[in-house]
Amino acid sequence: MAFDAQAERNFKVVGTRVTRPDGIDKVTGKAAYGADISAPGMLHGRILRSPHAHARIVSIDASEAEKLSGVKAVVTGADLAQPEDEAFADVAINCLARDKVLYDGHAVAAVAATSKAIAKQAIRLIKVEYDVLPHVTDVDEAMKPDAPVVQEGRALETVPAGMSQNVTTHCQFGHGDLEAGFAKADKIIERSFKTAATHQGYIEPQACMASLGSDGRGEVWCCTQGQYMVRANCAAVLGVEESQLRITASEIGGGFGGKTSTFIEPVALALSRKSGKPVKIVMTRDEVLKATGPTISSSMDIKIGMTKDGRITAARGELRYSGGAYPNETVDMGAQAAFAAYDLEAVETIGWNAMTNRPKEIPYRAPGAPTAIYAVESVVDELCQDLGLDPLDVRLMNAARKGTLSSYGPTFNDIGLVATLEAAKAHPHYTAPLGENQGRGLSCGFWFNFGGNTCVSLNINDDGTVGVVEGNPDIGGSRASISMMAAEELGLPYDKVRTVIADTSSLGFNDITDGSRVTFAVGLATIEAARAAIKEMCRRVAKIWGIDEDAVIWEDGCAKPAGPNAGTHPPMTLAEIAAIAGNTGGPIAGHHEVNADGAGVSFGVHLCDTEVDRETGAVKILRYTVFQDAGKAVHPDYVEGQMQGGAVQGIGWALNEEYIYGEDGRLQNAGFLDYRVPVASDLPDIETVILEIPNPGHPYGVRGVGETPIVPPLAAVSNAVSRAAGVRMTELPMSPPRLLKAMSG
Amino acid sequence: MAFDAQAERNFKVVGTRVTRPDGIDKVTGKAAYGADISAPGMLHGRILRSPHAHARIVSIDASEAEKLSGVKAVVTGADLAQPEDEAFADVAINCLARDKVLYDGHAVAAVAATSKAIAKQAIRLIKVEYDVLPHVTDVDEAMKPDAPVVQEGRALETVPAGMSQNVTTHCQFGHGDLEAGFAKADKIIERSFKTAATHQGYIEPQACMASLGSDGRGEVWCCTQGQYMVRANCAAVLGVEESQLRITASEIGGGFGGKTSTFIEPVALALSRKSGKPVKIVMTRDEVLKATGPTISSSMDIKIGMTKDGRITAARGELRYSGGAYPNETVDMGAQAAFAAYDLEAVETIGWNAMTNRPKEIPYRAPGAPTAIYAVESVVDELCQDLGLDPLDVRLMNAARKGTLSSYGPTFNDIGLVATLEAAKAHPHYTAPLGENQGRGLSCGFWFNFGGNTCVSLNINDDGTVGVVEGNPDIGGSRASISMMAAEELGLPYDKVRTVIADTSSLGFNDITDGSRVTFAVGLATIEAARAAIKEMCRRVAKIWGIDEDAVIWEDGCAKPAGPNAGTHPPMTLAEIAAIAGNTGGPIAGHHEVNADGAGVSFGVHLCDTEVDRETGAVKILRYTVFQDAGKAVHPDYVEGQMQGGAVQGIGWALNEEYIYGEDGRLQNAGFLDYRVPVASDLPDIETVILEIPNPGHPYGVRGVGETPIVPPLAAVSNAVSRAAGVRMTELPMSPPRLLKAMSG
Repeated sequence: MAFDAQAERNFKVVGTRVTRPDGIDKVTGKAAYGADISAPGMLHGRILRSPHAHARIVSIDASEAEKLSGVKAVVTGADLAQPEDEAFADVAINCLARDKVLYDGHAVAAVAATSKAIAKQAIRLIKVEYDVLPHVTDVDEAMKPDAPVVQEGRALETVPAGMSQNVTTHCQFGHGDLEAGFAKADKIIERSFKTAATHQGYIEPQACMASLGSDGRGEVWCCTQGQYMVRANCAAVLGVEESQLRITASEIGGGFGGKTSTFIEPVALALSRKSGKPVKIVMTRDEVLKATGPTISSSMDIKIGMTKDGRITAARGELRYSGGAYPNETVDMGAQAAFAAYDLEAVETIGWNAMTNRPKEIPYRAPGAPTAIYAVESVVDELCQDLGLDPLDVRLMNAARKGTLSSYGPTFNDIGLVATLEAAKAHPHYTAPLGENQGRGLSCGFWFNFGGNTCVSLNINDDGTVGVVEGNPDIGGSRASISMMAAEELGLPYDKVRTVIADTSSLGFNDITDGSRVTFAVGLATIEAARAAIKEMCRRVAKIWGIDEDAVIWEDGCAKPAGPNAGTHPPMTLAEIAAIAGNTGGPIAGHHEVNADGAGVSFGVHLCDTEVDRETGAVKILRYTVFQDAGKAVHPDYVEGQMQGGAVQGIGWALNEEYIYGEDGRLQNAGFLDYRVPVASDLPDIETVILEIPNPGHPYGVRGVGETPIVPPLAAVSNAVSRAAGVRMTELPMSPPRLLKAMSG
Repeated sequence: MAFDAQAERNFKVVGTRVTRPDGIDKVTGKAAYGADISAPGMLHGRILRSPHAHARIVSIDASEAEKLSGVKAVVTGADLAQPEDEAFADVAINCLARDKVLYDGHAVAAVAATSKAIAKQAIRLIKVEYDVLPHVTDVDEAMKPDAPVVQEGRALETVPAGMSQNVTTHCQFGHGDLEAGFAKADKIIERSFKTAATHQGYIEPQACMASLGSDGRGEVWCCTQGQYMVRANCAAVLGVEESQLRITASEIGGGFGGKTSTFIEPVALALSRKSGKPVKIVMTRDEVLKATGPTISSSMDIKIGMTKDGRITAARGELRYSGGAYPNETVDMGAQAAFAAYDLEAVETIGWNAMTNRPKEIPYRAPGAPTAIYAVESVVDELCQDLGLDPLDVRLMNAARKGTLSSYGPTFNDIGLVATLEAAKAHPHYTAPLGENQGRGLSCGFWFNFGGNTCVSLNINDDGTVGVVEGNPDIGGSRASISMMAAEELGLPYDKVRTVIADTSSLGFNDITDGSRVTFAVGLATIEAARAAIKEMCRRVAKIWGIDEDAVIWEDGCAKPAGPNAGTHPPMTLAEIAAIAGNTGGPIAGHHEVNADGAGVSFGVHLCDTEVDRETGAVKILRYTVFQDAGKAVHPDYVEGQMQGGAVQGIGWALNEEYIYGEDGRLQNAGFLDYRVPVASDLPDIETVILEIPNPGHPYGVRGVGETPIVPPLAAVSNAVSRAAGVRMTELPMSPPRLLKAMSG
């Protein structure tokens, strides 16, 4: 695909801060979220969950529940298909356990009843006999040879000696001679780090309404980051064909990666198939925290050697992640991302995943990267501290740039790390004075960004307005940015274009809204679809004018005669062409289907000032600035919002958020009172500086921006706290008791 | 566009009787109709209607209604825009009257309240002061110079002397020397006919849920034959842009043309805009009959001359239609259709439309044709009777055929009238004996059939199933027939394809589901979209095989190497190609946008046996057979269903259905007890004979089939009754009192 040289483009719509299209609906309560749709005769579904971290299911007796008046269906794992594909099979047993429950909160059975109250009563009447098994929730414990095995038969083909059958994944990246590199170092630091599992913490609990007929045709309305993913999962788990299911994504109250899997939709469909009625399921917050989404927990060893003037000579990391009760590849991304910010002669990263009796890990913004980079950036900071070096200068000296052989294989093209570091260095924040018990932390961050399968249709309406049809739920402003790119390409004002999210039956396949792919890939497909529509409009106009198709150009929203014909006809506007489309062949549209490539990696640098309360261990964030290369920032408000939101979530991860398990393997803090996310009063205004280093893989130079900003905060905050507290912190979250203990140790 | 020669095609799916895709949903109550969607915070709308046939609105005082607890908005005509375009302006004042009410039941104001009961109570509290005006409901009366004028300023530019300002339309068709033609006749009959307005009689009353924000963005869920028409009407009537409205068509409980306009959607949107809440409106049956849909009423003079051996020498018709209180072009179609079945040397048809104080005429299957052809076929029958000729032989002798210069202008291509007449002649029904008080009637019927603006997208899913996206509500089985054509073209079994109806924001513009256009035009676009997808699949496979794109052919659902490469690679199935689409470029789709031409006219012949009860005037239908050229019958069950349904509706029109107005201009029979549609016990099994004369304008030879079958019954029944009763009937319906009167006269 050949793209315009976007560098010279004089944007008219892209880069402005237009009104968001979903704003009024959201503030007036009109926006329809997952729980906001009902149907005549609808039943309410509720799920019975395991109280045990690990147990064999001996028997399930639902006879009392089935007898309760108002109960229309009870389903268990036996009502779902057993997909051959391992990934789908995991989704199935995670939706409803079959032989074993694998974690506290694992779904065991579900009921559909005529009211929520009856459904609640009914699940209490289901008798489940468990044979409780030993459990393990910590990743290091889980890897020990004598650990309880979470799932049999899922381990690596060859598990190394000294490790358990919980180890499912191994990966290794790097290049160069490590031994020689470390030998050149003036100082080597080797440290171990641990991070707890955290939750995406979206406001809207999972909710769906689903209907499935005896003919295998069904519909689902749900909040999700990917309706096509829901379709694939539901088709596999219910044993029906994809074309038979129509999935509509509702407005979404936050996802952050946590809505890239399915928990309740297949259950609601199974209940609907059995009862013959539509079934709605809305999760409680307790269920959301217990049975959806958390991140991996991690245990990591990082070793870095540095010369006394700041040159990194060698780096090695070993990452042990646990993605809960299932095999998991997240550590692979962590291992690739760990040292990506550095131009290194010798580097090695090794990753392992181990199963634990915790919920199935679900992606959370830049999955795998924040923890790995937290550990690496902590050691780099400590080296700078020990060697008396400026941490920004050291990063600049070692920064990856165009031509760098990355630590995970590819050679970088145009990247923005150096520019971002330079912007941070030039910013007043970096040199502002600090007081007592205050510290400044710095961290780089990195994310790959993805492209992926994408379909876009663009329709020219007869009144000269334009509809863009795309298939990715809008979690970060994509309806605005896609409309802007369509308007830009067509030469229309922004408000003439409306972008909608299609259901799975109305548009071809789209990958999930993840990997920061949407503005890049859907934008790219939209621009191509607009170009196809422009080509068709020029063809129609050429026919009207009786001149050659190639003699018509598109400029400022008009078809104009060009070349030798220039000036022979007055320009025709899009609206004029649209109004007579019926007479020139029919409706005008442009379409584009692509597996988009060239997403372009992204780097960020965060600066954080903290103050430590030596009496309580509490940490206050005094100032926080995010610097990030966004490529072309299509809608700067949203880009800044992503940067601020990522920073805030990372701050929560660094300071307070964690899954706390009791001795019994049960989650101790399944609620937002005990699982503490940052609130507005915890935070200063998050300052933002957007850098725009065009991505050569996109016609307008766009890069993904949504994930990178959650990567640096863990280390930025930890480095700031470590410097403020005078003690190097190596475990997250740095909750008051943990920090107090470290300071008193 | 070049199409395959369909004649030689060996169909595998098309022509079979596959299971209908909407069957289970409809019989289990799962199908969601207009009234079946709700939203949180939704209000209930109700409309206040005029009790007068014609009155000036002096004032509307809604203050008491607004004070009622639970009332959230009251709107009147002043809350709607005043579109410049006359057609939209008529929609607007028909939705909510402005200065005058034009008929009994005309909407005057509307209320949105938190419950249906409060809304009902509230409209009673609205005080409307009327200045009652003289009214006119009969078309002949309305054309008289001194008739009350229904709408000022809407008459023909030059109204002929002796006519009133209610006359809005005049048309004329024909060719040849009438005078010379009549001079050649052995017998001339000239008769006048009248028909009453009838209603489409769909089971499901109009219903919608609508939401419109202060930013002009809105959604409508409604039962309609055309979501794009609803969009255009609502955008014009509310003064917003088309791209801002997303209209979803619900499942539809009958339309028959009656759901090709909007009555309540703009009102619900106006109420929503004012209240800030979604608003649902469901019409009552009384409202449906009073304020939606009826057909024209007609008054017609027909003069035909015939030689004693049955050759028609000249024919003339003058049609006076009334399309209710608005200007109307339906008479144009009636005038064109009147003599279309005949190959005539001299023919003239003149049409007039006059406004009356009745609801706005809305199309009903083959609008304008049934009445005109009723009158023509009655006179032809009488001529046959008087001259002692076989009515089938006379029709065969005079039948239009390929090459005939039609009475309305075009020269016919391949048409099926002769074949249809021959099939009727050969059928045992035609020669079966008749008893006392029994008579056999015969009539030809004709309809143009339309093509029109159409968009189709076809998506290949990764599991090898296929989704077709089209934009026309399925009123007669189009989801099945479209899936069948897609399956046929792709070489897949029918059940691998699912066709869905997109909302207006998910697919480009489509004309209404009308004119029997959908199976023809959407089918054509689907076949083209499938061909585009096939081309893309072959391109992908050619790349995999490393051979030229043109060296790959599509056969039996597989890509195969052809020509010199034949046999060099095993065929790749669609499912195999689909599974790896992500690796070969991304999702695979085909699209087609077209203003389809070449729909191909259609003819039918109906035979009807009746028995007349001389004491009560009741008519019993003893036997009824429909012969029709369907072109290629894609799904014969549905084609037969259309033929049967049209015949039944025509029988109702002939025998009992009519709008009965009192002296006060109020509708006397606004309910299904008094407006009598035929029920199952009134009818014999309707026999059907499908003829398949391929339409050269469609790749598979498809013609429209849905409208033609309502055209012949009026005359077929009238001719049967006239022969059974021994008196020539010239007014519809032939209700018992009217027939009794005719027999006793």
